[in-house]
Amino acid sequence: MESFDAVDIIRTKRDGEVLTPEQIDWVIDAYTRGVVADEQMSALAMAIFLQGMTREEIARWTLAMMNSGEKMSFADLGKRTTDKHSTGGVGDKTTLPLAPLVASFGVAVPQLSGRGLGHTGGTLDKLESIPGWQASIDNDRLMRILADVGCVVCAPGAGLAPADKKLYALRDITSTVDCVPLIASSIMSKKIAEGTSALVLDVKVGSGAFMKDLDHARELAQTMVDLGSDAGVNTVALLTDMGKPLGRGIGNALEVKESVEVLAGGGPADLVELTCTLAREMLALAGISDADVEAALSDGRAMDHWRRMIEAQGGDPDAELPVARHTHDIVADRDGVLTHTDALAFGVASWRLGAGRARKEDPVQAGAGIWMHKTQGEKVRKGDVLFTLHTDTPERFDRALDSLEGGWTLGDDAAQAPQIVLDRIG
Amino acid sequence: MESFDAVDIIRTKRDGEVLTPEQIDWVIDAYTRGVVADEQMSALAMAIFLQGMTREEIARWTLAMMNSGEKMSFADLGKRTTDKHSTGGVGDKTTLPLAPLVASFGVAVPQLSGRGLGHTGGTLDKLESIPGWQASIDNDRLMRILADVGCVVCAPGAGLAPADKKLYALRDITSTVDCVPLIASSIMSKKIAEGTSALVLDVKVGSGAFMKDLDHARELAQTMVDLGSDAGVNTVALLTDMGKPLGRGIGNALEVKESVEVLAGGGPADLVELTCTLAREMLALAGISDADVEAALSDGRAMDHWRRMIEAQGGDPDAELPVARHTHDIVADRDGVLTHTDALAFGVASWRLGAGRARKEDPVQAGAGIWMHKTQGEKVRKGDVLFTLHTDTPERFDRALDSLEGGWTLGDDAAQAPQIVLDRIG
Repeated sequence: MESFDAVDIIRTKRDGEVLTPEQIDWVIDAYTRGVVADEQMSALAMAIFLQGMTREEIARWTLAMMNSGEKMSFADLGKRTTDKHSTGGVGDKTTLPLAPLVASFGVAVPQLSGRGLGHTGGTLDKLESIPGWQASIDNDRLMRILADVGCVVCAPGAGLAPADKKLYALRDITSTVDCVPLIASSIMSKKIAEGTSALVLDVKVGSGAFMKDLDHARELAQTMVDLGSDAGVNTVALLTDMGKPLGRGIGNALEVKESVEVLAGGGPADLVELTCTLAREMLALAGISDADVEAALSDGRAMDHWRRMIEAQGGDPDAELPVARHTHDIVADRDGVLTHTDALAFGVASWRLGAGRARKEDPVQAGAGIWMHKTQGEKVRKGDVLFTLHTDTPERFDRALDSLEGGWTLGDDAAQAPQIVLDRIG
Repeated sequence: MESFDAVDIIRTKRDGEVLTPEQIDWVIDAYTRGVVADEQMSALAMAIFLQGMTREEIARWTLAMMNSGEKMSFADLGKRTTDKHSTGGVGDKTTLPLAPLVASFGVAVPQLSGRGLGHTGGTLDKLESIPGWQASIDNDRLMRILADVGCVVCAPGAGLAPADKKLYALRDITSTVDCVPLIASSIMSKKIAEGTSALVLDVKVGSGAFMKDLDHARELAQTMVDLGSDAGVNTVALLTDMGKPLGRGIGNALEVKESVEVLAGGGPADLVELTCTLAREMLALAGISDADVEAALSDGRAMDHWRRMIEAQGGDPDAELPVARHTHDIVADRDGVLTHTDALAFGVASWRLGAGRARKEDPVQAGAGIWMHKTQGEKVRKGDVLFTLHTDTPERFDRALDSLEGGWTLGDDAAQAPQIVLDRIG
């Protein structure tokens, strides 16, 4: 590979010019090898943040990050594969019911997932609240579970897109996270390296999401759909509401509990609607149209796949879920309607209760979080318990209550139920 | 001191907002202590590069860098002090004749200087070509030499503006060097910490300088003059031409040789004019107006101070200067006029011959460089030697000649002698 100078490459982007494919390949490879220093990559990331990237630059950057590590292949599986990725939100446990639901139609769902950082939860943290369940499995076992059960949710191997791992940690401490080229290439480099043939993106919009408004979310969604198509991955994006939390449970075990309700044919309407919509999109990309996904939830097929998936990774689907040692109820002081519940406020409160982590190395509390007995739009009587806060460390209640201050409103007007799916791209 | 979060500070500047004095104080102090990481400071430097700083922010940033280390004081010296700083150019050896010339009028000149990096030379590298001369002296000796001789050129102590030292090394590898707020605060934090009461800035403009055009140079000069005035240092800036090399000698020993010619009452007209102009400005700031500086050069007073200054730092002013082992002549192939000699081309060629360094830890060749027998505007006869290249390592001639390609023009028109001093601010 030709050799370049990191200082020249930074200057090029700093001055608003377009990086060549060769410059991008070199800088990602050299960064992965430690030849380009962290302080140089952080200056480059800030220049990208402020000067942007063309579609061609983003595509090449994505491929270079993908090529920084190993690539997986499901070609020998003999099944179609389909994957889902959410940009992250509050109470977003959709992956849990979705993977077994889609697998129940004979489509393989290899769901390589992450952990929570900041106020958004992580799928692996949630599943780890199930006694015995293990996030890390090797590739052979991953393939065997996909062949036998059809769905797996696990941590990606260390060899997958190592450039993205380094860069992600760097962006977190240098205020270069919320930038479309860097978000899109981070997500898509991993998804393309994972070797799935189809991908449904759930791009969250609203206070609890990275993207606060629809225009930015649409730009991110279009960028990722383009990247997927360029790389031969059949990609569709839904823009979905994250102005309020999804469902009633926020926090690891509380979200597993609610997911199991959905798999048992129940659960809150918004979560069921989003799960079914995403399932139909994933199945359509895998060539199965008009699947009756509601039936698969109500007749136990999805639940059966869930139980087998949990067992295959050492978990006990019948075990009691962990419960926090302390609770605190918030009670309605009047009759009315819950006109507003802000996703960010509830996400931060749950994080402060111990459900999330401030640093990568922090542990999480399995039982911590918030249960919303009432959600946005519901009628309330004076004395009703609106929300229950859960934690093992009761000294955290005060700061969590601070976060909820102003984060919900009890009013008089019957609020319109917010729309879940706002737009579709692809 | 109140505690801040580096990530918030980076985000503030990234989004084009103004940093508070408290944020600036905290981030410089925390960076000096290693609490703010290099990769965070480089992201902040890039954000400053692209979003700029207000006058108030630059002033506070400068003071915070000054306060990161020790401050010197010449209050007990019983003499007025005056200082000069050049932003760097090709063949710019002005400090060498200037310091003893000004000192010969009874004004103290504490000239803390740097080494060359890239194509611009460094004053300490030049003086080190004098056998025995030492750049590093302690503060007591510095004060004694200032009291006895009146002038000293030496390396700054390690305790002076340590934040600037760290940041300068970082900027060099992250393409955040040529940025007015960062250049101005870097120079002025050191100059204010040095405790001089008056300062003349020589801001170079043209191909061989950081500032390629007059507008940017004027902006930098005005910023530094404002910073000096705010800090109680009487400051004046001259904008001077660096489109062509200054004088005839480029390279360490070659520049010392030419400086001694000036001190002996000779030397090239442009160098003599600039030296005398800067000397008059420095003396005026020290309260001496209408000094006959030309007389001090022609009657040996300046030379006397030069000899005592060199001896005070262990050097032998009568020693033979090092001479490079190999030379290569460039000869005129026609009669004509040397219509153009580009400072950058000659600076890079001299650097490639061994006069400069690519990395801080590289050594320099004392004898390497270029002697310009003919300079811009001079008439030339076919067969005249125009330039002699000097090096100890003859394999470097080819790349040096490449750099000179197109860097000079032999034409027919009598070119106008370029003006040296282009503007004055302060």
